[in-house]
Amino acid sequence: MNRKTVASLVPLLLCGAAFPLVAQTNRPTLAEKLGYSRDARLLIVHADDVGMTHSVNAATIAGLDAGLVNSASIMVPCPWFPEIADYAKSHPQVDFGLHLTLTSERVYYRWGPVAPKDKVPTLVDENGYFHLDWKTSTRIDPKEAELELRAQIDRAYSMGIRPTHLDSHQYRLLQNGKELFRAFLSVAHDYKLPAFVSRDWFAESPYLEPALSPTDIVIDHTVTISPGVPPEKWNEFYKNALKNLPPGVTEFVIHLAFANDEMNAATRERDTWGAAWRQRDFDFFTSSEFRQVLREESIQLITWRELARAASR
Amino acid sequence: MNRKTVASLVPLLLCGAAFPLVAQTNRPTLAEKLGYSRDARLLIVHADDVGMTHSVNAATIAGLDAGLVNSASIMVPCPWFPEIADYAKSHPQVDFGLHLTLTSERVYYRWGPVAPKDKVPTLVDENGYFHLDWKTSTRIDPKEAELELRAQIDRAYSMGIRPTHLDSHQYRLLQNGKELFRAFLSVAHDYKLPAFVSRDWFAESPYLEPALSPTDIVIDHTVTISPGVPPEKWNEFYKNALKNLPPGVTEFVIHLAFANDEMNAATRERDTWGAAWRQRDFDFFTSSEFRQVLREESIQLITWRELARAASR
Repeated sequence: MNRKTVASLVPLLLCGAAFPLVAQTNRPTLAEKLGYSRDARLLIVHADDVGMTHSVNAATIAGLDAGLVNSASIMVPCPWFPEIADYAKSHPQVDFGLHLTLTSERVYYRWGPVAPKDKVPTLVDENGYFHLDWKTSTRIDPKEAELELRAQIDRAYSMGIRPTHLDSHQYRLLQNGKELFRAFLSVAHDYKLPAFVSRDWFAESPYLEPALSPTDIVIDHTVTISPGVPPEKWNEFYKNALKNLPPGVTEFVIHLAFANDEMNAATRERDTWGAAWRQRDFDFFTSSEFRQVLREESIQLITWRELARAASR
Repeated sequence: MNRKTVASLVPLLLCGAAFPLVAQTNRPTLAEKLGYSRDARLLIVHADDVGMTHSVNAATIAGLDAGLVNSASIMVPCPWFPEIADYAKSHPQVDFGLHLTLTSERVYYRWGPVAPKDKVPTLVDENGYFHLDWKTSTRIDPKEAELELRAQIDRAYSMGIRPTHLDSHQYRLLQNGKELFRAFLSVAHDYKLPAFVSRDWFAESPYLEPALSPTDIVIDHTVTISPGVPPEKWNEFYKNALKNLPPGVTEFVIHLAFANDEMNAATRERDTWGAAWRQRDFDFFTSSEFRQVLREESIQLITWRELARAASR
């Protein structure tokens, strides 16, 4: 089936969202819409949290330069955003999205909203930073969230970034009810950018699928390492995930940084997603071991830029 | 003259501001108010810019721990403010002031106001950061400046700092006209904190002296190294300044950091007050050479805490 045929079928078949049993067999998969076979194993190697610290920026740029990390997303409210915005502006071919951010989850190093604080009071703590965490008592106003997301995107464009996609830091816009998810989608639609949503999440968050429109891209699978994996099993976890990669589009959500003074200090209150964690990710995803498994498993790397193009066809 | 006698004379003698010729000979000097002789050579070794980066925080704490850096001031709007606020809270004996900040003078690493951006529009650029610099066309509204200064001080108190003094990052509140200086003083008076003003600056900025009230503390001299000093002459500059230290209270305004990845990246667009500059300051002010000159010259270290106490007597 060539691309033209696929394109002509898309509107008809995507309307099948309300009839999943029919649609599942007949409508083209995301892989097919990208021009690959239905059983192709396609992978986005995606570095999160760019802009958070200089260490994250430097490691992400090194990972991109090494050639196998091929997509990343940027936190606009973070202090080192200007550094990565400057890089993105001078490297327009790089697949940078925006990592929409509503939390400031570290203790000793913090950031706050791009929108004026008094316009987004439910997003900030008593000192004007984004909340360290959202507790059950934290009420986030979706309208304020949407205002803040737009402010982040506007600043990114204003500083020269042309993002290929949007995603959500700590999945806050996906795991906290349909109103926040609708705000995320509404912003994505208005800016004509794909939003990172994975089919894996539909069971746990039943409000996701019904909120999607037919043209929204849905990734088939997501892989991200969890605190349960001991450091010495790091590479094994990723190699197993690659060897068992199912057909379709998978995003590896990874976190790169160098475990230097800055990063150790910024993350010192807990090990999860800390400096050593990120150094391990950097080491694996820039290794010849990773390159070899990709080759052996005939895994094809793709980017959000390709996904966005496929969606617009 | 004992302290009680000095205290009883202060109100009378300080009224002499309008009669400088009479006052200069009779009123007690700042040194005398502190309980020292008129010819004592008193020095505050003051590290600026704390909170700016982790590197600055770590070097300043190491400088304070080494024992000869004895005062510092903190930039509340900066990303690493929470780290130093936590340190200040758990080390209440340390002589920390607030380094009131209205600029974000680096290119790749930036910060913005503590007050809501829409309440301080003249302080921010089109992306919501404090201006990189103030040009002749930049109009700063002193009312907005004052609002922001109060927001910075309020956040500092709220996060556990009990500052001993206030000073002005890049001297913006001192070198930009009487209205901004009055805003600085007004805030200092309201929070009952001494504001760093040096008699050295009166000639260049004639609006300073008339704006002061009789109880304001005025430091006699300031020493700060300038871009004209080549790196190899760094220690010589400071040693000469110490050997030629005049009687009275002098503040050495110094800038400490480690020239590591973070600091090199944060300051890479220019060398002035950059990573290497700050590493040189750190090296000198934690050296045995510095300790030896202080001893040889019988220079006495004092802090802002002592100045504030003297002023309140």
